[in-house]
Amino acid sequence: MNCTKCKTKAAIKLPRHHAAFCKNCFNGFVHDQVAKAIKSQKMFGKDDRILVAVSGGKDSLALWDILLKLGYKADALYVNLGIGNYSERSYEKVRDFADRVSVPLGFTLHTHTVEQEEGAGIRELAQLVHRPTCSTCGTIKRYQFNRAAIEHEYDVMATGHNLDDEAARLLGNVLHWQEEYLDKQGPSLPASVEGFAKKVKPLYRLTERELAAYCVLNKIDYIVEECPMAQGARSLLYKEVLNRLETESPGTKQTFYWGFLDKQRKKESAPTTMAQKDQAMLRSCTTCGQPTTAEVCSYCKLMVRAKTPASR
Amino acid sequence: MNCTKCKTKAAIKLPRHHAAFCKNCFNGFVHDQVAKAIKSQKMFGKDDRILVAVSGGKDSLALWDILLKLGYKADALYVNLGIGNYSERSYEKVRDFADRVSVPLGFTLHTHTVEQEEGAGIRELAQLVHRPTCSTCGTIKRYQFNRAAIEHEYDVMATGHNLDDEAARLLGNVLHWQEEYLDKQGPSLPASVEGFAKKVKPLYRLTERELAAYCVLNKIDYIVEECPMAQGARSLLYKEVLNRLETESPGTKQTFYWGFLDKQRKKESAPTTMAQKDQAMLRSCTTCGQPTTAEVCSYCKLMVRAKTPASR
Repeated sequence: MNCTKCKTKAAIKLPRHHAAFCKNCFNGFVHDQVAKAIKSQKMFGKDDRILVAVSGGKDSLALWDILLKLGYKADALYVNLGIGNYSERSYEKVRDFADRVSVPLGFTLHTHTVEQEEGAGIRELAQLVHRPTCSTCGTIKRYQFNRAAIEHEYDVMATGHNLDDEAARLLGNVLHWQEEYLDKQGPSLPASVEGFAKKVKPLYRLTERELAAYCVLNKIDYIVEECPMAQGARSLLYKEVLNRLETESPGTKQTFYWGFLDKQRKKESAPTTMAQKDQAMLRSCTTCGQPTTAEVCSYCKLMVRAKTPASR
Repeated sequence: MNCTKCKTKAAIKLPRHHAAFCKNCFNGFVHDQVAKAIKSQKMFGKDDRILVAVSGGKDSLALWDILLKLGYKADALYVNLGIGNYSERSYEKVRDFADRVSVPLGFTLHTHTVEQEEGAGIRELAQLVHRPTCSTCGTIKRYQFNRAAIEHEYDVMATGHNLDDEAARLLGNVLHWQEEYLDKQGPSLPASVEGFAKKVKPLYRLTERELAAYCVLNKIDYIVEECPMAQGARSLLYKEVLNRLETESPGTKQTFYWGFLDKQRKKESAPTTMAQKDQAMLRSCTTCGQPTTAEVCSYCKLMVRAKTPASR
């Protein structure tokens, strides 16, 4: 099989694009897809300061790499969740990438260690507040990434969510018709109120498989295993059935998620935009000042519960 | 395992209802679900004349059986598509059921034979008009069932679509965000204009597996194989992935389809109803007089193409 573009030997086949690429043309394809995402969704410009949320997995390290190669100003934040050996190894991958690629270019890796800052690792915190580990982890990560973006005055926060992640999340929301989540599932969420950083997902046009191939071809060393806490997570099941559909009919994920975005775009020309709705609903947490719909935000509630012996 | 209701030995387990039933209580459950569908969706009353579309498969024969047992006035129409041995054997199952159950109660089986009326079987017609067999078959069945309902002055036409059928169709429509089809996918479609019979799906609360069990337990002999023309049909793939999700989390199909209906109901309180939209768009076919959005309806166009040597 030869590269669709330059006719040399192909390194990867992309059925959904009816194409195959050599390493160089594949890198060009990946960069183009990210550039297209950034432009079409008005994510950020060359002068904006970006904070990338990195985990040590393929998606977030590829994202940091691509943004730097495209000439953007991108620092990163790693949140160490304290999941024993798994967190140690993830952190190693992130540090290696930063030392080798980002720091020499003048960019910074910030680190937040949950055990140090919150007084316990994610597993212990989840037990203390009697909530599932994944939802506790989500609350903490969302909070810390947003806080870091605001405190260090970044213009935008970027996460490594890919097409598989977004399509799986959309399938879950559609199967349960969770309209409120459906409304908020876009690749570019504006900084709708004071205290909420703008959030973008520049990889939403690329699949998991394409991002793994990008890392392998570009020698980006990442942690291959899923988080040990995510075993049996619903999102993995949704990815599995979407992969089954994709095999039978390449392009299914893309048609599904991009079609949803088109539909959403049409809706947004309606009078009440999401930013307006959010402004009407959000206020400052009385404990920490970050935006919330309640009096005290979910992170502060969680921390109060974790620190109150009576709730244990 | 014992019956959830009467504590005798159970014949079938229903994970999505956290229940198990003996034959009698299972029949009661099936009848209750159909009665609930008829009532909640305002399908028909005890005085209405119903035309059931029967194919010889489990769903349509179960539907005819249940409606008669619930005391409704239900005749049926079988459309013989001329798919060789498969159609012959389906017809046999329908005739056997009618002779044994319906005719003794004073109800009628109508038959429409495509080879006689349209001059060729479904396979030949599809070839003549260069269209896939399944879509040609759909056009002919929709047309003939509607025409029979109107000509014989039935109040409503009932089809055997079950929860699996509707959830699979919904998944296909959602994956491609086909808004127009989404709008029309309800279990009770009103007779919005002159010439269009009211159409209902009283089995939308029951799964394929439940209807197969109903037939087996009640000794209703049906044709087990899928239509040989439907091999590899997209709908079978959608059913497969929904079954995968259902296994992991019983109730998925029901949450998905019923949740969609709830959402639709809320929408319908909006000013423009579907009937109003249809009335604005439909007119009479200049050839046959049945309702259509074009000058000539799709059935008449199909027949003209099939009969014009130049188009072959």
